[in-house]
Amino acid sequence: MSNPSILILPGDGIGPEVMAEVRKVISWYGEKRDLQFDVSEDLVGGAAYDVHGKPLADETMEKAQEVDAVLLGAVGGPKYDDLDFSVKPERGLLRLRKEMDLYSNLRPAQCFDALADFSSLKKDIVAGLDIMIVRELTSGVYFGEPRGIFEEGNERVGINTQRYTESEIERAARSAFELAMRRNKKLCSMEKANVMESGILWREVVTRVAADYPEVELSHMYADNGAMQLVRAPKQFDVILTDNLFGDILSDCAAMLTGSLGMLPSASLGAPMANGRPKALYEPVHGSAPDIAGQGKANPIACILSFAMALRYSFDQGSEADRLETAVEKVLADGHRTGDLLGEEGVSPISTSEMGDVIIAAL
Amino acid sequence: MSNPSILILPGDGIGPEVMAEVRKVISWYGEKRDLQFDVSEDLVGGAAYDVHGKPLADETMEKAQEVDAVLLGAVGGPKYDDLDFSVKPERGLLRLRKEMDLYSNLRPAQCFDALADFSSLKKDIVAGLDIMIVRELTSGVYFGEPRGIFEEGNERVGINTQRYTESEIERAARSAFELAMRRNKKLCSMEKANVMESGILWREVVTRVAADYPEVELSHMYADNGAMQLVRAPKQFDVILTDNLFGDILSDCAAMLTGSLGMLPSASLGAPMANGRPKALYEPVHGSAPDIAGQGKANPIACILSFAMALRYSFDQGSEADRLETAVEKVLADGHRTGDLLGEEGVSPISTSEMGDVIIAAL
Ligand SMILES: CC(C)[C@H](C(=O)O)[C@@H](O)C(=O)O
Ligand SMILES: CC(C)[C@H](C(=O)O)[C@@H](O)C(=O)O
Repeated sequence: MSNPSILILPGDGIGPEVMAEVRKVISWYGEKRDLQFDVSEDLVGGAAYDVHGKPLADETMEKAQEVDAVLLGAVGGPKYDDLDFSVKPERGLLRLRKEMDLYSNLRPAQCFDALADFSSLKKDIVAGLDIMIVRELTSGVYFGEPRGIFEEGNERVGINTQRYTESEIERAARSAFELAMRRNKKLCSMEKANVMESGILWREVVTRVAADYPEVELSHMYADNGAMQLVRAPKQFDVILTDNLFGDILSDCAAMLTGSLGMLPSASLGAPMANGRPKALYEPVHGSAPDIAGQGKANPIACILSFAMALRYSFDQGSEADRLETAVEKVLADGHRTGDLLGEEGVSPISTSEMGDVIIAAL
Repeated sequence: MSNPSILILPGDGIGPEVMAEVRKVISWYGEKRDLQFDVSEDLVGGAAYDVHGKPLADETMEKAQEVDAVLLGAVGGPKYDDLDFSVKPERGLLRLRKEMDLYSNLRPAQCFDALADFSSLKKDIVAGLDIMIVRELTSGVYFGEPRGIFEEGNERVGINTQRYTESEIERAARSAFELAMRRNKKLCSMEKANVMESGILWREVVTRVAADYPEVELSHMYADNGAMQLVRAPKQFDVILTDNLFGDILSDCAAMLTGSLGMLPSASLGAPMANGRPKALYEPVHGSAPDIAGQGKANPIACILSFAMALRYSFDQGSEADRLETAVEKVLADGHRTGDLLGEEGVSPISTSEMGDVIIAAL
């Protein structure tokens, strides 16, 4: 049997730097745990635009469809701010999500004990926080038609369409219920059913799917209240299910509660392929951080933990994922910090590659 | 000249209780400051549904169009949860906003010194916080057509339309720039121009309007990053401009930063009427709180401060508004607390009407 395949798309800004550390980790698993991967690499985002004139070449898209997992760094940067909408770096990422049909975006918001002081929230509010946001990722207002800027009378109008079919809601809901079953059997679904018909259908379908998961305690919340409750008392939640746009905002809000964005991974999963593995893309929640790019200052942990999610969700190596996560916790407990995690007295920062090295050592 | 007119719509839940305290304040201004108002009262929300079978009677809508200001308590409650979408309590509020064309929703998020400990955020992050969110309130996905739940093939699809014309964006932007001029001349506009064409048009129009306010420092931020930054370091903001749906979520997030939702007022303003006053509706940010309704536990301050906003924005009585706000600060500094503001040792709560009384006494 051939090795599982991984396509690495480092992208822009700090993407290549953090991905170099993931490569070290991948090699370690090959050498030390006999987990070999066939790794290839390609361009996405501004880096792809610079070469191909578009943020994702068709050949890259094809490769992404064929591999067992895609690892992505980050896309975007000021250099590309004035590009036309259709070729902006983000479109490369959105094309991957859409064409790979990655409908279930898993965003853990976890507060690491060693870092609880970094949160802008009081320690008792966030210490031990461990929630999982499941964001629908292939539909809604991100992709609905009609969309565009149109002439209307003597002015222009900007239009986007929020659009969800029952089956789109259902498959996202199922993936959230499945996760809830493996966690604390508590799921909160968020929408604006008091204002939007798409939210009414969302609530109805989620309620229907719940019948197949009688052990899961389901609640519904309006998304605005959800934002409030995340700030007020985030530990009331375990799994949160929400749509593409609400998920974008609420998951970033939740991520920031933990105080350490440089720590947070994500997984975007689709339907099972012929080999039983789901289509999958893994990426850190942070962006391309152009201000510190190329300086060896970036924190590679979010990207490394994204690889841990790949071990768990794509390669059925849950205990190896645990091993990697434990190694990360250990280096933090030992006081190793990249520049984004400073603040304590007398700690000086280590570089991106030093952080990679201490994690390898802890493995 | 006749007295300025106010229509009071107490609504549901704690609405009537908190509004009773506002009435005391209004009377005080008549007796002590010779500011008389012609006050009438009517039904909205579930209370209107119970009587009229819909959440806002046409006669009430007409009255609202004629008065100088509407004061609204709150709408909604579990009793009405299973009503059809078209007659839900919220529709009454949304009809008022839409038909009065209240395009500019001002939501201050202010942290009162005496209450900084209530925030789930660290004190230094929120102490002295004073930001103003300007939310577009009459357009966007709340009102765009097509909308509804439709059959499509053998399933249903829920559709809402995000839709902004240039002139809709422009008038909301102007009101935000005007506010910024009266505050710290710093405005941050939030959208998802990286994903939505309506956000591209939004950014373009806001940038164009900025040319008329060269003194105002304008920045743009993606709404997801906006949510993060609000949690991370809210004091970086002064005025925030955003659309109807993002505004719903971001303003609730910002409100919760202050830790005391029972304190926060809002104003919804439209175009000037013949008498020069803007169409206006004032309401607390909190909801109808059915769990404590009718028990004399509600905090009337948000509703009273909404009347202070009415004094400032509808009745050109800025110094009387200051007086009322100062009175509120004084009662808080003196240690008076309704049940929602407890937590300190040895403080016992006062009732809704006692809070009204101590504020009157402080005036
Ligand atoms: C980069 C951008 C297109 C993307 C999104 O809006 O989904 C990002 O914010 C995210 O959350 O992954
Ligand atoms: C009650 C509801 C319709 C309303 C809204 O979504 O606008 C509320 O959340 C608000 O923010 O005023």
